[in-house]
Amino acid sequence: MKKSDFIREFNVNIDMAVEAHEILRGESEDEIPGVRMSKAEFDHAVITTIDIETEQGVQEMGRPQGTYITIDAPDIRQNNYLVHNEISEILAKELVNLMNLNDNSSVLIVGLGNWNATPDALGPQVIDKTLVTRHLFQLSPDELKGKLRNVSAIAPGVLGITGIETAEIIRGLVEHVKPDWVIAIDALAAGSLERIGTSIQICDTGISPGSGVGNRRVGINEETLGCKVVAIGLPTVVNAAIIAHSCLDGLLDELKTSPSLYKLYKGFNSDTLEHILTQALSPYTNNLMVTPKEIDTLIKSAARIIAGALGMCLHPGITREEYQTYLQ
Amino acid sequence: MKKSDFIREFNVNIDMAVEAHEILRGESEDEIPGVRMSKAEFDHAVITTIDIETEQGVQEMGRPQGTYITIDAPDIRQNNYLVHNEISEILAKELVNLMNLNDNSSVLIVGLGNWNATPDALGPQVIDKTLVTRHLFQLSPDELKGKLRNVSAIAPGVLGITGIETAEIIRGLVEHVKPDWVIAIDALAAGSLERIGTSIQICDTGISPGSGVGNRRVGINEETLGCKVVAIGLPTVVNAAIIAHSCLDGLLDELKTSPSLYKLYKGFNSDTLEHILTQALSPYTNNLMVTPKEIDTLIKSAARIIAGALGMCLHPGITREEYQTYLQ
Amino acid sequence: MKKSDFIREFNVNIDMAVEAHEILRGESEDEIPGVRMSKAEFDHAVITTIDIETEQGVQEMGRPQGTYITIDAPDIRQNNYLVHNEISEILAKELVNLMNLNDNSSVLIVGLGNWNATPDALGPQVIDKTLVTRHLFQLSPDELKGKLRNVSAIAPGVLGITGIETAEIIRGLVEHVKPDWVIAIDALAAGSLERIGTSIQICDTGISPGSGVGNRRVGINEETLGCKVVAIGLPTVVNAAIIAHSCLDGLLDELKTSPSLYKLYKGFNSDTLEHILTQALSPYTNNLMVTPKEIDTLIKSAARIIAGALGMCLHPGITREEYQTYLQ
Amino acid sequence: MKKSDFIREFNVNIDMAVEAHEILRGESEDEIPGVRMSKAEFDHAVITTIDIETEQGVQEMGRPQGTYITIDAPDIRQNNYLVHNEISEILAKELVNLMNLNDNSSVLIVGLGNWNATPDALGPQVIDKTLVTRHLFQLSPDELKGKLRNVSAIAPGVLGITGIETAEIIRGLVEHVKPDWVIAIDALAAGSLERIGTSIQICDTGISPGSGVGNRRVGINEETLGCKVVAIGLPTVVNAAIIAHSCLDGLLDELKTSPSLYKLYKGFNSDTLEHILTQALSPYTNNLMVTPKEIDTLIKSAARIIAGALGMCLHPGITREEYQTYLQ
Repeated sequence: MKKSDFIREFNVNIDMAVEAHEILRGESEDEIPGVRMSKAEFDHAVITTIDIETEQGVQEMGRPQGTYITIDAPDIRQNNYLVHNEISEILAKELVNLMNLNDNSSVLIVGLGNWNATPDALGPQVIDKTLVTRHLFQLSPDELKGKLRNVSAIAPGVLGITGIETAEIIRGLVEHVKPDWVIAIDALAAGSLERIGTSIQICDTGISPGSGVGNRRVGINEETLGCKVVAIGLPTVVNAAIIAHSCLDGLLDELKTSPSLYKLYKGFNSDTLEHILTQALSPYTNNLMVTPKEIDTLIKSAARIIAGALGMCLHPGITREEYQTYLQ
Repeated sequence: MKKSDFIREFNVNIDMAVEAHEILRGESEDEIPGVRMSKAEFDHAVITTIDIETEQGVQEMGRPQGTYITIDAPDIRQNNYLVHNEISEILAKELVNLMNLNDNSSVLIVGLGNWNATPDALGPQVIDKTLVTRHLFQLSPDELKGKLRNVSAIAPGVLGITGIETAEIIRGLVEHVKPDWVIAIDALAAGSLERIGTSIQICDTGISPGSGVGNRRVGINEETLGCKVVAIGLPTVVNAAIIAHSCLDGLLDELKTSPSLYKLYKGFNSDTLEHILTQALSPYTNNLMVTPKEIDTLIKSAARIIAGALGMCLHPGITREEYQTYLQ
Repeated sequence: MKKSDFIREFNVNIDMAVEAHEILRGESEDEIPGVRMSKAEFDHAVITTIDIETEQGVQEMGRPQGTYITIDAPDIRQNNYLVHNEISEILAKELVNLMNLNDNSSVLIVGLGNWNATPDALGPQVIDKTLVTRHLFQLSPDELKGKLRNVSAIAPGVLGITGIETAEIIRGLVEHVKPDWVIAIDALAAGSLERIGTSIQICDTGISPGSGVGNRRVGINEETLGCKVVAIGLPTVVNAAIIAHSCLDGLLDELKTSPSLYKLYKGFNSDTLEHILTQALSPYTNNLMVTPKEIDTLIKSAARIIAGALGMCLHPGITREEYQTYLQ
Repeated sequence: MKKSDFIREFNVNIDMAVEAHEILRGESEDEIPGVRMSKAEFDHAVITTIDIETEQGVQEMGRPQGTYITIDAPDIRQNNYLVHNEISEILAKELVNLMNLNDNSSVLIVGLGNWNATPDALGPQVIDKTLVTRHLFQLSPDELKGKLRNVSAIAPGVLGITGIETAEIIRGLVEHVKPDWVIAIDALAAGSLERIGTSIQICDTGISPGSGVGNRRVGINEETLGCKVVAIGLPTVVNAAIIAHSCLDGLLDELKTSPSLYKLYKGFNSDTLEHILTQALSPYTNNLMVTPKEIDTLIKSAARIIAGALGMCLHPGITREEYQTYLQ
C-alpha cells in the first residue's frame, strides 16, 4: 500500500504542503497540474516553494490556492547560534516577500496551541518572546514610525482550557484590533520524523481546519477572519500511524524480493492493514503523537528562531543584535 | 489631613466600596444620602452590603449605582481548609443571589491581571482552576442541563504582554461567545493592610477604569460589553502612599496632644505633605505596591476559594467535594 | 520474533515489572522460578504484586530482589473524582503496607523528571502538590506528632538543566536531611499503550539506572542513598520501537495463516527486522516517545491521585477531604 | 531619629554594604576605621567598592571581612539593550577580578529565592538562563577546555516549598559536586527605592543569615559550604518600615524650622515612633515589601544582565553575541 493511499485511507493529517506534494508525486518527475514547485539552496537550509495556482491544483493538493514555503534546516538540531541566526534571517526574508508590508501595516500575532503540553506549546512560546508595540503607537505614533511596526500578540489557549473555539476568540479580536495581517504560529504534525523541529512552513493561506497538533476545528484564514493571514508552522510530532505504516511498508518491501510473496503483497487489502494498525495503536487511534525526548529544547530553539525572524521582518529599524536582546 | 482628603488630594485609588464608604462616613453615624449599608455576621466572616441607590449616592461614593458586597474574613490567613470552604460557600451564596441564573444561563469568566507578577496574578490563577464546559454543551447539551452550566473562561493577559487593551479583547469575545453574564476576577489595591488576601468584594457593576493592581484603563461593565458583569476582587496590595499617610497621620496625632502643636498641625498644608510624600516615595509615585512576603500563598488560597465558589454557584449538580477535586 | 526477544535484542527499556513478567511468561502458566505473583481485584483497579525472592528470580526478571506492586486502573482516564479518590486510597494503603512507618518516621519525596517536557513532568507536578512539614517540626515537634509526619520534598531537575546527575543531588540531600525513607516519583516508559496514564507501579527497590522517561544514568536506591527507597512510577510514554514491533508482529501473524509463509516468517531474521525498524525510526532510534495528545490532563490527574495518596499515607491525622484541599 | 538609629532600633535588614556604609557615615566625610571605599564612574554605571579590612571594620559595618562591589546603574530601567550589555560587561569584569578563575575552575551557580513570588524570583530566573556544562565535561573534557568552564546550576526552592533549609541543600550538593566556587544569586531588600532593579551588589563573603527578600536563616558562605562563595544580589523590594521612616523623617525635618518644635523633635522618643510605625504597618511588621508595579519586567531585565555577565565571565571562549543567544 502506497503512503499516499495509506494517508488517504487512514485519514492521517499531513500538515505540510511539501510533504503532501512529495507523496502525491511519488517517484514521478512530472509536476502536478496547477502546482508549481521551486527550490533554492542555502548553506544551512533548503527552501521549497510550492504555488498552488489553479482549481485543479487545489483539488490535487487538497489545500487552498496560495504559496507554501518550507525551510528545511536540519542543522537547527545543532545548538549553534550562528546557524540559528542564519535561519532567522532566511525566514524573515521570506516573510517580507510574502507579506509586502508598508510602514503603516499593523500585525496581530497569534500563538496557537496548549502551553501545558510541550509538543503543542510552540505558539505560546513565540508569543512570550514577542515585542508588542500596539499600545505604544497609541501614545506616540510619529516617533515610532519607520522604526517599529504596530504589533499586538496573544496566545488564546486551547478549547479544553477556554471552552471557546480558538478561531472564535481570534475573530472577535480581529474585529476590534483591525490588523492588516494576522500571523498565526502553530505546532504541526509532520509526515516524517526528520522534519520534527527542523522544518518551518510559512504560507499565505492561513490554517485549515483539522491541522496542527491540536487539530483546530475551524480554519483561521482570510475567509474566517476577514483579513490576510500568514501561518508559520513547525512540525513537533509525527502521527503514530505514520510510524506504523513505515514499518509495514518496510516489511512488505522485503517480501517483494520473492515473486510468490509479491503476489501476496499485492493481495493484501486495506482491511487487513487497518486491523493490524488498530491493534498496534489500541486503545488510541489517530490521537497518538510520536516525538523525540529532546522536544522541549527543540521547541525552545525554534521559538527563538521564529520570534527573531518576526522581529527582523516586522521592526525594520531594530538591528538583529538589538532584537535578539529583546527575546526574553 | 483626613484620610478622605488625602485620598482625594493624592489621587489614591480605593478599589473597595466598603473602604470608600468608611472613609466617607468617617466617625459619623449618619448614612450617606442615596446609599444603604447592611451587615451580616458569620462564624468566620462579616458581610457588608452597600447599595448605591440614587444619583446622589453615585456622586458621593464616586462609583456606579449597584450593589457592592464585601466578605471580610481574616481567618483566610490561617491555612485551615474548613474555614476556606465555609468562605467559598458564603461567596457562592452571595453570587447566586446577585446573579439569579437559570439553567440555560451562560457565563464567561475573565481572569484579569498579569501572570508574571504575583500580586497581580489572582485572575489568571482562578482561570487555571476553572472547569470550562461550553465546548461540552455544543456536543451534548441535554445531558448536561441541570447539572452543569455553560461556562467559558479566559485570562487575556495585560497591555504590556498583548499590546491590546484588556477591555477590547473581552468585548470581541463577548460578541462571539454571547454569554448572559461575564464574571471578571481581579486583584485589587486595598486602603488598609488588614484586607490584603482576606477580603473579597463582589459587585454587579463590573470594573471601573483605573481600578485594580494593574489599573485598567477602560471599564469592563455592562456599558462596554453589552452584557451583565459581576466583578470579584481581592485586595493583594496597598498603595505605598497609604502607608506613608498612616505614618504622617500617626505622628500628627501625637502632636495634637499639645495645644501649640495642634495649631501647627492644622496649619500644615497639603503642599508640605505632598513634598514629604514625594520625597519618601521617589523616584516612584503612585506606582509602588506594598504587599506581604507570603503574597504567593495568600493568592493561591484565595484562588482556590474563589474557584470553589464559582463551581458551587455555576454548576449546581456537582457536590462541593466533587468540585474540590476539579480544582487543579 | 517474540516480543521478549525483540525487547532484549533491541535493548528496549521496560520499566514496569508487571510487563517484564508478562513478557517473560508469555503464554505459559508456569511461575518463573524465584518469583511470586498475586492479584487482587477492586471495583476500579486490579493490583498485581510481584515478589522477586531469590537470586534466580533476579536473573530472570533483570531487576533487584524486592516487591513490585502495580495498580492497573483504566478508569483513571474518566475524569471522575470518585474513582480518582478510590485509587488514591488503594495506593495509600499499599504504601502504608510497604513502608511500615511509625510516628517518628521522616520522609523525603523526590520528584524526578523535567518540568519543561510534559511527558516527563509527573515528578515535579507531584512535588508541587505536596504538603511539606519538616520545617514545622523544627519549631514545634510535639504538637504535630501523631497528626503530621516529617516530610520534605524536592524536584531537583534533570541533567540538562543542572549539569549534575540527579542521583548525586539526592545523595547530598539525604546526607543532610537524613530521612528514614526516600519516595521517588518518576514518569515511566510502558511496554503497552493501555498503561499510559492508568497504571501506577510502586516498589521497594528504588529506581534502576536506565529507567524512566529521562533514562536516569545512576540508580536511586538504598545502595546509592544509604536509606530505604520507595519508587512510585506512572507510564506516560511508550518507546516508538514497541509500536513498530507491534505492527511487524501483527503483519507476520497474518502471514502465518499460509504454511509457505509461515516458513518465511520463521526465516525472518533480526537483522532484517532491525533494518526495517531503523528505517522507520530514522533519524532517531531509542529516543522517540509515543504519547497521547491528552497527556497533559492525564499527568495532572495522576499527580493529584499520587499526591493525595502520599498525604493519606504520610499524614494520618488529616482526613481525606482535608488533604484534598491542600493539593493546589 | 537618624536613619542609622532607626534601622538598628527597628531591626530593619540592610542587605547592601554600600547602604550600610552610607548610613554609617551619615554626613561625615571621614572613612570608617578598617573600611576602605573607592568609586569608579562609567557611562551608565557607578561602581563603589567597599573593602572591610579589619576586625574593627567588621564590627562597624556589621558584616564579614571582604570586598563588596556595588554597580549602580539607574539606566537599567530604560529598556535599552546597549546599556544592558554594557552593564553585563562591567559586571563580568568585576566577577573576573574578584574570582581569579583558571581554565580548570569549576563553578556551581545557585539561584536562591521563590519562583512563585515575583519579587523573590531573581535567582531562579537567572538559573533558567544559565548554560550548564558540567555534564559535557564528563564526556569530552579536552575539547571544551579553554572555551567553556565546568558550570552546574540549581534553584533549590525556599523553605516553604521543600521543608529544607536552603543552605543544607547547597551544602549537600557542594560535597558531591565539589565546585571551586559557588555563585549565589539572590533578590535583596534595599534601603532606598532608587536602587530597586538598578543596583547589583557582588561580594566575596557569600550570603549572611537574615538577608535577602526571603530572609535566609543560615548563611551561605565559605564557612558553611567549605568552598569560596561569591554572592550576586539585586534589590527588588524595600522594607515598608523604611518608607514609613522616610515619611516621619520628612515631617520632623519640616518641624525643625521652628525652634520650639525642634525641641519637640529632639524629645520624640523611639517608643512613640515605634507605636506610630506599628500602627501604620499593622497587622504586619517586618514582613511587608514595597515594590514597583513593573517589578516583573525589572527582574526579567536584571536576570538577562546577570546571566549574560556569568556567561562572559565563566565561558571566555564564547563571544558576547554568541552567549546572548543562549539566554532563553
